[in-house]
Amino acid sequence: MGDTIYDRDLDRVAANYQPLSPLLYLDRAARVFPEHVAVIHGGLRRTYADLYDRARRLASSLKARGIARGDTVAVLLANTPEMVECHYGVPMTGAVLNTLNTRLDAAAIRFCLEHGEAKILITDREFSRIAGPALEGMEKRPLVIDVDDLEYDGPGETLGELGYEAFLAAGDPEADWALPADEWDAISLNYTSGTTGDPKGVVYHHRGAALLALGNVVTGGLGQHPVYLWTLPMFHCNGWCFPWTLSVVAGTHVRLRQVRSEAMYRLMAEHGVTHLCGAPVVMQLLINASDAERRPLPRRVSFFTAAAPPPEAVLAGMSEAGFDVTHLYGLTESYGPAVVNAWHADWDALAADQRAAKKARQGVRYPVLEALDVRDPETMESVPADGKTMGEVMMRGNVVMRGYLKNPKATEAAFKGGWFRTGDLGVKHPDGYVQLKDRSKDIIISGGENISSIEVEDALFKHPAVAAAAVVARPDPKWGETPCAFVELKPGANASENDLIQWCRGRLASYKLPRHVIFGELPKTSTGKVQKYILRERAREGGKEA
Amino acid sequence: MGDTIYDRDLDRVAANYQPLSPLLYLDRAARVFPEHVAVIHGGLRRTYADLYDRARRLASSLKARGIARGDTVAVLLANTPEMVECHYGVPMTGAVLNTLNTRLDAAAIRFCLEHGEAKILITDREFSRIAGPALEGMEKRPLVIDVDDLEYDGPGETLGELGYEAFLAAGDPEADWALPADEWDAISLNYTSGTTGDPKGVVYHHRGAALLALGNVVTGGLGQHPVYLWTLPMFHCNGWCFPWTLSVVAGTHVRLRQVRSEAMYRLMAEHGVTHLCGAPVVMQLLINASDAERRPLPRRVSFFTAAAPPPEAVLAGMSEAGFDVTHLYGLTESYGPAVVNAWHADWDALAADQRAAKKARQGVRYPVLEALDVRDPETMESVPADGKTMGEVMMRGNVVMRGYLKNPKATEAAFKGGWFRTGDLGVKHPDGYVQLKDRSKDIIISGGENISSIEVEDALFKHPAVAAAAVVARPDPKWGETPCAFVELKPGANASENDLIQWCRGRLASYKLPRHVIFGELPKTSTGKVQKYILRERAREGGKEA
Repeated sequence: MGDTIYDRDLDRVAANYQPLSPLLYLDRAARVFPEHVAVIHGGLRRTYADLYDRARRLASSLKARGIARGDTVAVLLANTPEMVECHYGVPMTGAVLNTLNTRLDAAAIRFCLEHGEAKILITDREFSRIAGPALEGMEKRPLVIDVDDLEYDGPGETLGELGYEAFLAAGDPEADWALPADEWDAISLNYTSGTTGDPKGVVYHHRGAALLALGNVVTGGLGQHPVYLWTLPMFHCNGWCFPWTLSVVAGTHVRLRQVRSEAMYRLMAEHGVTHLCGAPVVMQLLINASDAERRPLPRRVSFFTAAAPPPEAVLAGMSEAGFDVTHLYGLTESYGPAVVNAWHADWDALAADQRAAKKARQGVRYPVLEALDVRDPETMESVPADGKTMGEVMMRGNVVMRGYLKNPKATEAAFKGGWFRTGDLGVKHPDGYVQLKDRSKDIIISGGENISSIEVEDALFKHPAVAAAAVVARPDPKWGETPCAFVELKPGANASENDLIQWCRGRLASYKLPRHVIFGELPKTSTGKVQKYILRERAREGGKEA
Repeated sequence: MGDTIYDRDLDRVAANYQPLSPLLYLDRAARVFPEHVAVIHGGLRRTYADLYDRARRLASSLKARGIARGDTVAVLLANTPEMVECHYGVPMTGAVLNTLNTRLDAAAIRFCLEHGEAKILITDREFSRIAGPALEGMEKRPLVIDVDDLEYDGPGETLGELGYEAFLAAGDPEADWALPADEWDAISLNYTSGTTGDPKGVVYHHRGAALLALGNVVTGGLGQHPVYLWTLPMFHCNGWCFPWTLSVVAGTHVRLRQVRSEAMYRLMAEHGVTHLCGAPVVMQLLINASDAERRPLPRRVSFFTAAAPPPEAVLAGMSEAGFDVTHLYGLTESYGPAVVNAWHADWDALAADQRAAKKARQGVRYPVLEALDVRDPETMESVPADGKTMGEVMMRGNVVMRGYLKNPKATEAAFKGGWFRTGDLGVKHPDGYVQLKDRSKDIIISGGENISSIEVEDALFKHPAVAAAAVVARPDPKWGETPCAFVELKPGANASENDLIQWCRGRLASYKLPRHVIFGELPKTSTGKVQKYILRERAREGGKEA
């Protein structure tokens, strides 16, 4: 490192160097605002003092069971208070929190438990139908702890050796816990949904989680004491790191076991919700809520969405319903959102369609992401900022995952060339804003020309009868592939295949026109993303039939 | 580090590990909001694109002169645009920015230049009267670059080889610059005022500066595009890191060459100022402004103050004048503020004197400071949180300095026991909030009893005729020391020595009463702190005479 005057006698010591970790945010919130309500769940209220107490009890009980640094503790939980507690209590022991996707089937859960080598599984009774078969006959069966949520009265049974409340009661709320020795230590493990092949285990570290939490506060403009409604599953990228984010500003988590419009409006009105994150489907629910379901909101609500650019009509509907929409972008590999459509005040003066066009862009890096670019995946050269030249969206920085667990090949491929390759294709506009054009695997190649499925979807979306649209490649003997559209119509609306193709004709180059339009509900993931691989299969089958 | 599954094949690479540095905040602001005004200085407007361009030109010209990692570049500047540029351009080369206190005398400036081994000095014409003699006959005279600020028309001459504008013009705005290889690398050097002995050179690093900037945004509730009025000198703890903080949220720096009430009100009204930081003396200026000097403010302004707890009357006056006051605490060694009087909403309902008592407490750690405590400096044991037991205020975390340059003894003493010892004495209240009672050297020991000078000052401050008060120890043959008060009366107000002693009698234990009261203006540092060492000398002289 050289030998300047600054390289002598100015070393890291305990006084001036501590590992970055989001765990300290809870410690602070509990000390500074012990009586502030941290969690609202049905009739239950827990303060920050309670939350810290319960997290420390959990940590102490886990340690008593031998859980230590680098062990995996898996959880199969709804967005309940226990889930927040696990975000603190598990890493307080040095262990790694593996939040399992509750929409997976038993085989996938089994895969995750085995691959992650979970020593303990904390599971909600509701999910016993998948956890039960997943655990059956496992060679190294984890210790199972059951959560029996008072707000849940549906079917399901307890599976385990212990109840969560008894486990906590045995813990010591005064027990010491320590920061990790190294901020690079793993804090959580998130399996990607794995549309092809086995899920990959994305590893987060304390440093990245601490930084993304600050990034969320800065980017989301969270002041002190925000009231945050949970619709996003916390198993998804650790809820975009919001379980940690809220402690920075001593916010209140408002829980919602099921995402329904009536409940959302009721909770927003009752608790003065200020912020929420949600998939596009949540915006649809809010906009399409009946008058009976709606409630007047005490103030405008900030809504953070990702996964798909919000269309013009949705933005207008949301604004009218009292929401300010911010468009974020990220992946499991980037701790959730790491890119924001940073809004310019002068864009407010644009016409609605131009505003929507601006809002559709994924945007620019979070202040805590060091670099975002669109590059040629072969040469690694940056594409020109012309809004046209496609390349792969790439990221670099401290809120990029450590890598994929026990999968050095995949890790190496993802980081090849010194950047994290998102697998998303996009362009850079002249103002530097990035816009996705497609997943690399979603691009349609017709007669040698690249067609962005998103562009075709946008054209369809503008048709007044269309509620949702997804376009995929359909094998074609002449062109190689042609665009095949799957369309969900609005209730009561009508449009024929030909209507929609004609509609697109005025809006797209002719080679980009969908050749087939198939009507019906779109298959979606638990986080509201359209499952294009299912549609691709359907299109392929249709292709064979044709 | 052990060998768990998380310790294998999940290493730091360029894609997922980048040095933390505030320099990237400017890069981002310039890319995302290039046209947003970054700097207002008289009639001058510079956008973020301009600021980034000029910072890069500066870096490129410095590099052309051989400036590289670990070199010191000293600046003797007012709060001008050049000063912000130096906060970026200098560290972009890997060099270290040494902001010199413009109120020092030539000998002290000479000491800093020699001790810091400055290779270059960038100096404003206004300060040639101190820079000139400081440079005279220096063995290793730095290259001198003159700033000739258009807003300054007072006396002073250029001293150097080069003008700042010509130096920048020769630079290349497209030149590459690099982040430091290590976030632990030094970014700036701040000499403490050194009330005893030679000044000590406090070394900041990129990691700490990046984190404190985020901490300021979170703690100060800065939204996007704040408008920030500079009254705090930027040479003081790098302006509490606000030159870097504003880039996180693309804020506007409004410059003020001289802190006068008319100019402050005019700039706040004209530019819609949202935030400012200032010493207690700035609050006095704002409150005591005449009607002619005042201007209606377009919105309430957030005012961050430190150095002394704001008294009740000041808080009331500030609120009436349109300011919300937040009380911060920190030291040069903690990058400026690292502690905040985090306000509880329910304290608003308290009576004015009780609110002021709450506000007088220094408070709790910033979210980016890892620990704050009050400990026995001998045993290192935490004092009980009883609001009474005194101890030394101690900090630990990433926003604590690397240490004192070329002074390992002082560094070791400051960090002894694993904590940074602030030298401030205080108590911990039952709610964990820290309150200063005195500097260790300011405590008065009378007949074996400790007397907090702050407590005596508080009592004096409540007298309607008192504008400012400072209490120090006066040698006493019988008691060892007794409290000696120095008092500034309000214009037109009258009070005798005996009046004030009687006033205190109802408010303080008798051994704490000031035995002497001396009237007159208090000597203050450039940042508005009372220079108690001067008062101590005066009290000592008085003591001899008596």
